[in-house]
Amino acid sequence: MASLKQFEPASGTRDFLAAEYETRERAFATIRSVFARYGFQPLQTPAFERLDVLTGKYGDEGDKLIFKILRRGEHEATGEADLALRYDLTVPLARAAAAYGSQLPSPYKRYAIAPVWRADRPGKGRFREFVQCDLDIVGSSSPLSDAEIVLALHDALDALRVPEFRFLINSRHALFGLLEAYEVPEDLGAGALITLDKLDKLTPDAVVSELVASRGLASGMAEGLVEDLTSQDCVERIRARLKSSETGQVGLAEVDQLLALTKGAIPADRTVFTPSLVRGLDYYTGIIFEVTAPGMPGSIASGGRYDTLISRLGGKDASACGGSLGIERILPLLQQAESDSYAQVDVAVTVMDQDFSSETFRLAAEIRRSGVRTGVYLGTSGKFAKQMKWANEQGARFCVIYGAAERDAGTVTLRDMATGDQDQVPFDQAPEELARRCAPSS
Amino acid sequence: MASLKQFEPASGTRDFLAAEYETRERAFATIRSVFARYGFQPLQTPAFERLDVLTGKYGDEGDKLIFKILRRGEHEATGEADLALRYDLTVPLARAAAAYGSQLPSPYKRYAIAPVWRADRPGKGRFREFVQCDLDIVGSSSPLSDAEIVLALHDALDALRVPEFRFLINSRHALFGLLEAYEVPEDLGAGALITLDKLDKLTPDAVVSELVASRGLASGMAEGLVEDLTSQDCVERIRARLKSSETGQVGLAEVDQLLALTKGAIPADRTVFTPSLVRGLDYYTGIIFEVTAPGMPGSIASGGRYDTLISRLGGKDASACGGSLGIERILPLLQQAESDSYAQVDVAVTVMDQDFSSETFRLAAEIRRSGVRTGVYLGTSGKFAKQMKWANEQGARFCVIYGAAERDAGTVTLRDMATGDQDQVPFDQAPEELARRCAPSS
Repeated sequence: MASLKQFEPASGTRDFLAAEYETRERAFATIRSVFARYGFQPLQTPAFERLDVLTGKYGDEGDKLIFKILRRGEHEATGEADLALRYDLTVPLARAAAAYGSQLPSPYKRYAIAPVWRADRPGKGRFREFVQCDLDIVGSSSPLSDAEIVLALHDALDALRVPEFRFLINSRHALFGLLEAYEVPEDLGAGALITLDKLDKLTPDAVVSELVASRGLASGMAEGLVEDLTSQDCVERIRARLKSSETGQVGLAEVDQLLALTKGAIPADRTVFTPSLVRGLDYYTGIIFEVTAPGMPGSIASGGRYDTLISRLGGKDASACGGSLGIERILPLLQQAESDSYAQVDVAVTVMDQDFSSETFRLAAEIRRSGVRTGVYLGTSGKFAKQMKWANEQGARFCVIYGAAERDAGTVTLRDMATGDQDQVPFDQAPEELARRCAPSS
Repeated sequence: MASLKQFEPASGTRDFLAAEYETRERAFATIRSVFARYGFQPLQTPAFERLDVLTGKYGDEGDKLIFKILRRGEHEATGEADLALRYDLTVPLARAAAAYGSQLPSPYKRYAIAPVWRADRPGKGRFREFVQCDLDIVGSSSPLSDAEIVLALHDALDALRVPEFRFLINSRHALFGLLEAYEVPEDLGAGALITLDKLDKLTPDAVVSELVASRGLASGMAEGLVEDLTSQDCVERIRARLKSSETGQVGLAEVDQLLALTKGAIPADRTVFTPSLVRGLDYYTGIIFEVTAPGMPGSIASGGRYDTLISRLGGKDASACGGSLGIERILPLLQQAESDSYAQVDVAVTVMDQDFSSETFRLAAEIRRSGVRTGVYLGTSGKFAKQMKWANEQGARFCVIYGAAERDAGTVTLRDMATGDQDQVPFDQAPEELARRCAPSS
């Protein structure tokens, strides 16, 4: 007998048995229904794209993590790849928006809940196959779009019953304005932002040191920036600072408009202007946000406006904004509340006598037609105890017994699996009676 | 501007926009609900497996069609593959059954509706990414299992409203018995069956020629076989012939038992003993079946018993049977009945004045909370006609107008998009009123 190891799924991937599968699908269904309520529509793209569609879109580090597919047939021996598994859902969106532009509504509001693949080193909570859950609006520069993304994500998290989450909100313009206000030289800006992004992980002193040593900022400049961003009255200080920069004022206006638009629709304490929020990806051009929740390190959702990305990806020039739920980080928290058991059937039909199997089978068909999940014993044992054990393992609430005595009486015996109580009902009325007993309200 | 060609999905794959996506998902949901009613449970395995799990399982021709994934990092330059996209759902089932055996119910009744990938030459109705829809019972040798597979597929096709389909039923034992009855030498049997499988495509004469020329059968033997299999009273003739072979009798008993078990549960004319049915795959060991429907060439579903496959795939020795819906062949037929249009929202909220956008937004949030799919105009035009055009494109049934006049009166205007009728309702009552008007029963 081979070891179990050889039957495990490939490194970094998972099999989902019934209970976990259903828990995940329930969460996806909840999210889909919220997104649909906002008028987002689904888009499904293939698992793989032509290699050239993907390469050069994710930076050098990202490119290394793309799963490439070997050419086939006579070309296989070249060792070259011509296709690749999708790395995210944004590049396929850009390709589809370019391909079907005229057939799509404008703006195009789409969602996608689908697996992506990255050749990352597998680790706790880090997989090579994982589901992304994206929603985007392509073709609208309106600040209402940014607000709609935030509201839809909010409602989805709310519907999933994620507790006490908050949207941290900033704008790339506010960040660039901040650098301007502190007179950081333009060519040092991008590097400085990467380091400032670490304020939630490193001590303020460590960030100052890195700004000076690695990013080339003057030490007074670095100290001033970090002190303002980590002070108690950070928001007031930064607001005041940003007034001195035109870009900063634009950023502030974006943030304030988003706060105003979402006010009333969702509780005001769910959105917080967070001047130190940077977001790693450099394709954002306006509003950026992350969602945090107590007890979960890092963010559980994020997004922002990216007005130049679609054209950089090869599509036509289009404003766009979007967001993504970190669904693989959210799901494990939700699962704790769910039962891990999976009731396979509501009614288990025993086969006490193989001679009656035809009638038993027809009875099961009738019960199913009344909408009840019904299993028939498919083993070889004629022993009552063994079939009861099977019925219990299936999670059945009721068990149907049809033997010689029942046949003679024209009845079936119904056994309540929880109490062991048994009673007789006429054969023809069993389906209806079981439907009644198994109805959700009972 | 680049040509559209470059934005098409990779050869043999498809993008699914909203309308088609929803049509497909509705069909999958129908099938899932039937399978669940039979007590089958879902299993989801990863898109890719270790290469050695897949190779050698599909024959030489099949192996060539496996999409192989290049090793990553420093190993990429070797041009070697270590992973591969799944080619079907059966091998992953065998792996999972081996991996989780003790955690799974016995018998293990599982379904899977998921894409598989094959590097076939793309053509009309032939894709490189397509969905398979399988259900299998592992660990039961009972004839009730074969019958349950047939019933579940029947109910799924029925629920999908596929018209007038029929199950063609045979047994591998009947086929081997037939060869015995005609005294076909044992070593010529497998080849003879491959040729007999062509009786639905070639003329009887052509099949006889191939049996003689390519398969080495004596010409009298070949003529007798083909004449019996193509005669008007084929079933009676073959039944009589099979009585002379022990294996043939076993096969006949299997077929008759299946017909008896399904009788009553489904209309009797839905199952037909078809002695010429062969099924290409050589892993079947007992009952085999195909489903045909008028107007669709070939089969729309198929399956059978395969008691040795799981152990050949590396799992423990287990009886098994299963079936598969040819869902990609069924779906195009169902789509004709469905509307191709996709109503994105029920209610379209116009933004006639950007100054009111906050209140408009809050109103939209309230309408959504009452369960109604609601979109807000995200464009930049303040023109009424333009926003009405947008509302129509969205498929909205009602449109909400909130301008200066409405604000002063504390009302909103509701416009019925089909009739153009407009009326005023108090601002606070609009969500409830729209929920009422959009309710499915209205």
